[in-house]
Amino acid sequence: MELNRFVCKNYRDLDDLLKFSWSSPSNIALVKYWGKNKDQTPKNSSISFTLSSCKTKTSIIFSKIEKKLDVVNFTISYDGKRQNDFRPKIEKYFASIIKYCPYLLYCNLEINTKNTFPHSSGIASSASGMSALSLCIMSLEKEITKEDFSGNFFFLKASFLSRIGSGSACRSVYGGFNIWGKHKDFEQSSDLFSLQLNQSISTEFENFQDTILLVDENQKDVSSSAGHSLMDNHPFSVDRYMIANKNTSALKIILEKGNLFAFCELVEKEAMMLHSLMMTSSPSYVLMKPETLKIIYEIKSFRNMNKVPVCFTLDAGANVHVLYPEKDSKSVLDFINSKLSKYCFQGKFIKDHLGKGPEKI
Amino acid sequence: MELNRFVCKNYRDLDDLLKFSWSSPSNIALVKYWGKNKDQTPKNSSISFTLSSCKTKTSIIFSKIEKKLDVVNFTISYDGKRQNDFRPKIEKYFASIIKYCPYLLYCNLEINTKNTFPHSSGIASSASGMSALSLCIMSLEKEITKEDFSGNFFFLKASFLSRIGSGSACRSVYGGFNIWGKHKDFEQSSDLFSLQLNQSISTEFENFQDTILLVDENQKDVSSSAGHSLMDNHPFSVDRYMIANKNTSALKIILEKGNLFAFCELVEKEAMMLHSLMMTSSPSYVLMKPETLKIIYEIKSFRNMNKVPVCFTLDAGANVHVLYPEKDSKSVLDFINSKLSKYCFQGKFIKDHLGKGPEKI
Repeated sequence: MELNRFVCKNYRDLDDLLKFSWSSPSNIALVKYWGKNKDQTPKNSSISFTLSSCKTKTSIIFSKIEKKLDVVNFTISYDGKRQNDFRPKIEKYFASIIKYCPYLLYCNLEINTKNTFPHSSGIASSASGMSALSLCIMSLEKEITKEDFSGNFFFLKASFLSRIGSGSACRSVYGGFNIWGKHKDFEQSSDLFSLQLNQSISTEFENFQDTILLVDENQKDVSSSAGHSLMDNHPFSVDRYMIANKNTSALKIILEKGNLFAFCELVEKEAMMLHSLMMTSSPSYVLMKPETLKIIYEIKSFRNMNKVPVCFTLDAGANVHVLYPEKDSKSVLDFINSKLSKYCFQGKFIKDHLGKGPEKI
Repeated sequence: MELNRFVCKNYRDLDDLLKFSWSSPSNIALVKYWGKNKDQTPKNSSISFTLSSCKTKTSIIFSKIEKKLDVVNFTISYDGKRQNDFRPKIEKYFASIIKYCPYLLYCNLEINTKNTFPHSSGIASSASGMSALSLCIMSLEKEITKEDFSGNFFFLKASFLSRIGSGSACRSVYGGFNIWGKHKDFEQSSDLFSLQLNQSISTEFENFQDTILLVDENQKDVSSSAGHSLMDNHPFSVDRYMIANKNTSALKIILEKGNLFAFCELVEKEAMMLHSLMMTSSPSYVLMKPETLKIIYEIKSFRNMNKVPVCFTLDAGANVHVLYPEKDSKSVLDFINSKLSKYCFQGKFIKDHLGKGPEKI
């Protein structure tokens, strides 16, 4: 069974105290993951773009205990301050991964975490947060197994563990573009973990830019988790999953060939479809805000007028990710400052770009 | 063949001059018509709400000519002023209906038309315009056949002719709620014409109100005709047609039982699905404007806060139809004046309500 390879069997006692720290980025899906199976595997493959500046820094102090516990014992702090409202999600996560990381029952965990991006800015922190957490756990596993983790098993299992915590988190353990979900065009692809695209990506996408316009700082009306579950009885779900897989194939070629305008078209269609799926679910809901639409109209118009390959994508929220090549940074940033920033909450946006993946710190 | 019944065969010579005038209302679909066959029959059944104040007044002077023509000879004026840009559509219309109304080749037509609602206000004038035109032609047919048109054949053929001019126009020849498109729950229903709902409509919908918020006075980016054709290769089309037919069944029961909140839910879902279909077509497009979304959010919030069964629907455009029972007029109009009118172009909205259908004038 494929899952067996992720079960850690040979580990020795911890040292009294071990501390590991990882910084892990968020990512934004270009082909969207929307709809999942009970085991947190996706209904279709997705391709993501790893961010650089938007990240979570997490440290875990693992301290040895004498007697094996039944559940993982931990404390959780955000920027040094105890955060008990984070507990339920982390408890659920540990309960789900304990069969793969049984050594966690032999220690106390003191977790401290912090995001570089503003709290409740509407940027999914579960991707960066869950991947940072998983990477710290993998550092412990490496230490107490003394495995050299030939190949990329270290990151593969980190991705596998991240996925269990939050689906899209599995795409945050590598830099660049990532694929998650079994897909015929990607031989090694799997529903269980993400892989960095090893196809030759065109230099057109080198240091690609993503400026995130913060439209809404409020909590979303419908959580992504609830949104995914509304896909289960969605009338368009079967067709949607097929289209997403087709778009994955198409995006692979676009990324290889460097066709920037085709990239814009495909990425925007995916964003529109994601939000259409929300608008046609039962109950129906809308996460776009008026400012989201204003920005979308402006971007389309700017692209048509100036022939600059800038496009938007949306996460499951109101914020707009503006994607463009580095060579067009000046004109696009001028455009963002003069035309788009006024639609942002307090004029805020985050200048980010294609990232190289997590860092051990 | 069913179409044969609409071919007029026994008609006598015209008097030298005959003039007929009809006023015919616009209508708004509650279950939407989106996607059509080549013969202008719909891909799914739709249910509409006839308006009262938004209407077209059309007069035609039919003057006898000596020799049969090959095509229908006409002039067209808007409010007394010649409008040659209307000609192509009307020429196409006459060419399509001539086999059913062959007597039109024996006269000149002097058409004069006028809408009660502001020109280019974004309200579909094809429904009211094409139905008023068809009714004038049917008045001529009645005069020169001396048929008594037993049953409702007069309006049935008017609806049939209207449909050929503009699909949704066929729902504008009767008042109240109308069904167009063959549907198992409506015995007499047909793809060729519309019928007034003869089920007992609950008194809850008596004199139901529709206030039309004019968000955008510009020409639409994508015409409805182009929009319909994008359904031909739409990935969700088959499911959409099935859902629309289900919603037709559900709305029938809602209208009979007078379940106002279920009405709101269904009508809003249909509007959202219509616009989702546009957003997921190829090319993808958005007709909602930022103000459309602002209004939608406000209406949902007002309904939840005040427990008033007010809801929105959208046509294939940015304007918002606000639907509510007459008994709630005061509170809803206060709400529209204080909260919604500021999102309207020049603060404009049109207060309308469920209409009784066309009038011979």
